[in-house]
Amino acid sequence: MKATLMFGAGDVRIADVPEPTIKHPTDAIVRTVRACVCGSDLHPYHNMPRNDAGNPMGHELIAVVEEVGSDVTTVHPGDFVIVPFAYQDNTCVYCQEGMQTSCIHGGFYGQPDPGGLQAQYARIPLADGSMVKVPGINPDTANDELLASLLTLSDVYLTGYHAAHMGEVTPGKIVTVIGDGAVGLSAVLAAKSLGAERIILMGRHKDRTDLGREFGATDVVAERGEAGIAQVMDLTGGYGSHVVLEAVGHMPAYDQAVGVVRPGGIISRVGVPQYEEAPIGFGSLFGKNARLAGGPAPVRNYLEAGIADVLSGKINPGKVFDLTLPLEQVADAYQAMDSRTALKAMLTP
Amino acid sequence: MKATLMFGAGDVRIADVPEPTIKHPTDAIVRTVRACVCGSDLHPYHNMPRNDAGNPMGHELIAVVEEVGSDVTTVHPGDFVIVPFAYQDNTCVYCQEGMQTSCIHGGFYGQPDPGGLQAQYARIPLADGSMVKVPGINPDTANDELLASLLTLSDVYLTGYHAAHMGEVTPGKIVTVIGDGAVGLSAVLAAKSLGAERIILMGRHKDRTDLGREFGATDVVAERGEAGIAQVMDLTGGYGSHVVLEAVGHMPAYDQAVGVVRPGGIISRVGVPQYEEAPIGFGSLFGKNARLAGGPAPVRNYLEAGIADVLSGKINPGKVFDLTLPLEQVADAYQAMDSRTALKAMLTP
Repeated sequence: MKATLMFGAGDVRIADVPEPTIKHPTDAIVRTVRACVCGSDLHPYHNMPRNDAGNPMGHELIAVVEEVGSDVTTVHPGDFVIVPFAYQDNTCVYCQEGMQTSCIHGGFYGQPDPGGLQAQYARIPLADGSMVKVPGINPDTANDELLASLLTLSDVYLTGYHAAHMGEVTPGKIVTVIGDGAVGLSAVLAAKSLGAERIILMGRHKDRTDLGREFGATDVVAERGEAGIAQVMDLTGGYGSHVVLEAVGHMPAYDQAVGVVRPGGIISRVGVPQYEEAPIGFGSLFGKNARLAGGPAPVRNYLEAGIADVLSGKINPGKVFDLTLPLEQVADAYQAMDSRTALKAMLTP
Repeated sequence: MKATLMFGAGDVRIADVPEPTIKHPTDAIVRTVRACVCGSDLHPYHNMPRNDAGNPMGHELIAVVEEVGSDVTTVHPGDFVIVPFAYQDNTCVYCQEGMQTSCIHGGFYGQPDPGGLQAQYARIPLADGSMVKVPGINPDTANDELLASLLTLSDVYLTGYHAAHMGEVTPGKIVTVIGDGAVGLSAVLAAKSLGAERIILMGRHKDRTDLGREFGATDVVAERGEAGIAQVMDLTGGYGSHVVLEAVGHMPAYDQAVGVVRPGGIISRVGVPQYEEAPIGFGSLFGKNARLAGGPAPVRNYLEAGIADVLSGKINPGKVFDLTLPLEQVADAYQAMDSRTALKAMLTP
């Protein structure tokens, strides 16, 4: 089958690899309906050391179940499913507490075992916990818009939702979203769905912030750094933002978040931090009782509700996809996202 | 009148200073019933640069109102009041959101203006927002135990309560408290009052951890660092603590907190951080969705409820005082706390 391998920074290719097979009785094999490229895939695209064996890529998928192991009970061959970007048993203590990305028996795709999801087929470990059936939808006849929105439930939209959820967005709150990438725009949509009164989007790519406005942003701030902070403070009457959703992961974005959060407010991060240490002392978080939240989204925890919201038409998060390419052209998909000519690229098998 | 001045590290003395007078129509003048020394007073006691003018000290007080300015309406001469460690108008946007330590018009005692509260008299700015009357209690006839507990509502107990509140302690939660000082023990008592199922106290002074057990600690861990983390993990079945209340403020205490918090859990800090930068990236907080909260306690927000809990006998936080000295001996009070021969020292006028 065709699968995406990365051999080093900037070098991502389609390769012919053996089709996956059931290894454990809790596994399932699925056939790809749609996959896509994540902003986080661009980190190794920038800095991965040379690896001649190639590393399997991809962690976002909607698919049809081909085969299940003997212990799998909740999904069956032929089911159309959404596959969260992490696998989990969905039964351990952490899963029960809604932290499935910390599942004791779980893990992540995009490594030799269990492989990547930018491929024609995939092996899904712990299948009962790691996929959810979409009821009543035939992927062969469903329209592209619906499939795109369902695909975002694998990661990007529910990562934005996680930011808003952990940021405790509720009606009446002022929310600032930092970053106009696909996760940031998803966070805007999620904040809107949770009733935010005002949503300030910090981003400087007009085509993207235009989609942000469509998703619910009430204000756009293109400035960054101190000028951006000053503008957000101005927009909030000098008081700052109750919630800041940080969807970038670089230090300047964190500094902006600290600058605009109001006393007692929450900074919720879903951009994977490209730093380990950062200011949290009296002069940054402590002095104003600002809180910090966020991490890898436990997508599984939000998946049933997300499916219902997409199927009902309440949300249409698939609009973040502005490029669709066949899997064979995955290298072009990476290149387009890296050069920012595409916001997010979908792959067809 | 007699007031406490600090002239440099280790040099704290009683001095004769002019009695305070009303400066603004929103001020009140109060006469001290009880004051005390705070763990945070020990920071300048360790490192204050020489200052021949002397810096007024103290920020914890119960008192009787002597005189009020023409704009003060809620307290009157003769009222017995609790004075929170920060002053505030209690009406600004931040105060209304429960963040009175960030009051736009507020500030802190222990500086030349408005002075310190380890003194016979004090000027209280913004008196309507900065003191609360204790109903039905005559301080001249009330017993010492009750006065001690009411005094803790000025800072130490409600700081511990703030930690537990921001840590979202609820029934069923496993809570670890780091630090067996007066704030840590108060945090134990507050966690117990909020229904924590299990309270693990990390501290190594047996007389203090014994009081911690009396306040509700179910387990005591004397080890620190990696050994202490391992023991807490063991006590929690390897899963970690839902809530960690950090009442120390030094970096090793933060590292312990990161080590024992479980995925999705909250580290709530009330020990004033003696650091600005700390690990918050993928390897510390982000990877496990651990949250960070805390800051200077908005005591005013919790004061009426705290008074009711003390008067009803539900809590008796005054047990943290194990030394009472006359104000003239304030230097001995600092010395006793600094040498850890006293947990917390009360001062009588």
